[in-house]
Amino acid sequence: MTQHVAIREVALRDGLQIEKPVPLCAKLELLAAVAATGVREVEACAFVSPSKVPSMADAAELAAELGHYPDIEFSALVASPNGAKRAIAAGLRSIEYVVSASDSFSKANVGRGSAEATNQISEILAIAHHSDVSVEIVVATAWDCPFEGPTPPQRVLDIATVACDHGVDRFSIADTIGTATPGRVSSLIAQVLPVIGGIPLGGHFHNTRGTGLASAYAAVSSGVTRLDASVGGLGGCPFAPGATGNIATEDLVYLLTDSGFEVDVDLKAAIGAAEVARAVVGHDLPSALLRAGDRIRN
Amino acid sequence: MTQHVAIREVALRDGLQIEKPVPLCAKLELLAAVAATGVREVEACAFVSPSKVPSMADAAELAAELGHYPDIEFSALVASPNGAKRAIAAGLRSIEYVVSASDSFSKANVGRGSAEATNQISEILAIAHHSDVSVEIVVATAWDCPFEGPTPPQRVLDIATVACDHGVDRFSIADTIGTATPGRVSSLIAQVLPVIGGIPLGGHFHNTRGTGLASAYAAVSSGVTRLDASVGGLGGCPFAPGATGNIATEDLVYLLTDSGFEVDVDLKAAIGAAEVARAVVGHDLPSALLRAGDRIRN
Repeated sequence: MTQHVAIREVALRDGLQIEKPVPLCAKLELLAAVAATGVREVEACAFVSPSKVPSMADAAELAAELGHYPDIEFSALVASPNGAKRAIAAGLRSIEYVVSASDSFSKANVGRGSAEATNQISEILAIAHHSDVSVEIVVATAWDCPFEGPTPPQRVLDIATVACDHGVDRFSIADTIGTATPGRVSSLIAQVLPVIGGIPLGGHFHNTRGTGLASAYAAVSSGVTRLDASVGGLGGCPFAPGATGNIATEDLVYLLTDSGFEVDVDLKAAIGAAEVARAVVGHDLPSALLRAGDRIRN
Repeated sequence: MTQHVAIREVALRDGLQIEKPVPLCAKLELLAAVAATGVREVEACAFVSPSKVPSMADAAELAAELGHYPDIEFSALVASPNGAKRAIAAGLRSIEYVVSASDSFSKANVGRGSAEATNQISEILAIAHHSDVSVEIVVATAWDCPFEGPTPPQRVLDIATVACDHGVDRFSIADTIGTATPGRVSSLIAQVLPVIGGIPLGGHFHNTRGTGLASAYAAVSSGVTRLDASVGGLGGCPFAPGATGNIATEDLVYLLTDSGFEVDVDLKAAIGAAEVARAVVGHDLPSALLRAGDRIRN
């Protein structure tokens, strides 16, 4: 039986987060291109501090437009109970709460330590579930921290345990700085799966050291059923030294379908959306498939 | 037990082949940087038509300098019995003869069909073994041809059979145009291994669609013990539409060592050699690790 991998398109949030703010109309143009790929899940925006992440300041305005795409499940990233309330008030039915497994990164990213962030899981789940909104807990720096080095897997497992104890709907692990490689990806997943039981496990990889696709392939070969990707490989993280773009949706679609996995995203439409993303941000993007066409010589 | 992967550095041949010819002194500078990585195998040059591949016209002059590195096993690519004789006369102790599994690519690449190229395997092996020189048969377009599409695996197996029947020393399969993905890589290797018996199997991957490292990892996980790579990701093939650089040595070293494999190449020295490669060709290179340093933000 062909294994299905759910791709979540994150260009609008993780992709645009590090960019200079683009107008809402440009985001809507990118959203239309992304929707045309057939993708079923889209991370649309983040309800975080507008002063710290100016590119996400129009989250509520964007959220008001999402009803035009009833077949897509939209999610928003939040960093606090207050962010969760804002997201729900804006109409989101799915939120992601990020907890860094590394204390130093957590402090750099959200101004508080890993334990404190973990302690808010129960409150955020209670707020969301009260409104029938689903919650994904994302563990940032699940493999490595730019300040502390390798992350002890037990920290990821501890966060997973707390998340499961409070009824999390989805769980995912993120290679925030793009240092993971297939061997360590498979190893961590093998440790996480028994802890989360039947809860769907997602993976989030960056291509900083060229290993993002190799790690993504290792992930789906090891039990991950959901992967984040952004058209064009747009994105990064302003608080993660050395982080470059997310793995490119079109490169991932090529890799997975050619290797026999099933995805919802159409390859040609994804390349088209990558072209829109490039135009929206006004600079070149790291996607391989976006470039490959330019290199045909015969 | 830790699995060892032999990396062959191909920047001087596959890497420089597509570039405008660089002076011999620049090649020697790159060679010195490559030798400093600790690599044990280096593809130094090609004995082919100087009019078709001008960047390899100084192969004999370069070969005369290789004695300065007695710990490295140097090889040269040849495309005909005459090329094999020239390589041996120049002092090479190891040659690679490339046979394309695709007829159209073979004609575009060397001006004769796949069957004719396969028929010369026995002559080349006889010439080389007469001088106690070892021979590797490389199957180009082993997964896909830019003109014909997917390559039937049986063509690769047929070439392997001929090569083994005539006493080949090493065998390798090349993703000449960078379209292979892990699933098909593992599948072809599983078919090749029983045909070649105990002969070492190598893999050669390009990163045109971002999948080169994922394919390389699949290869070493499936029984390949030798991989080609070029510092900086230098290289391509002038006759393969859309082909971009080889997988970058430094990215491969990072991936393999971080995933628990053992290699001879030092990571820092490989990044240093990539910087030399970039200076030698005078333009940016696709290596991820060469770029990652430029993207540190904190």
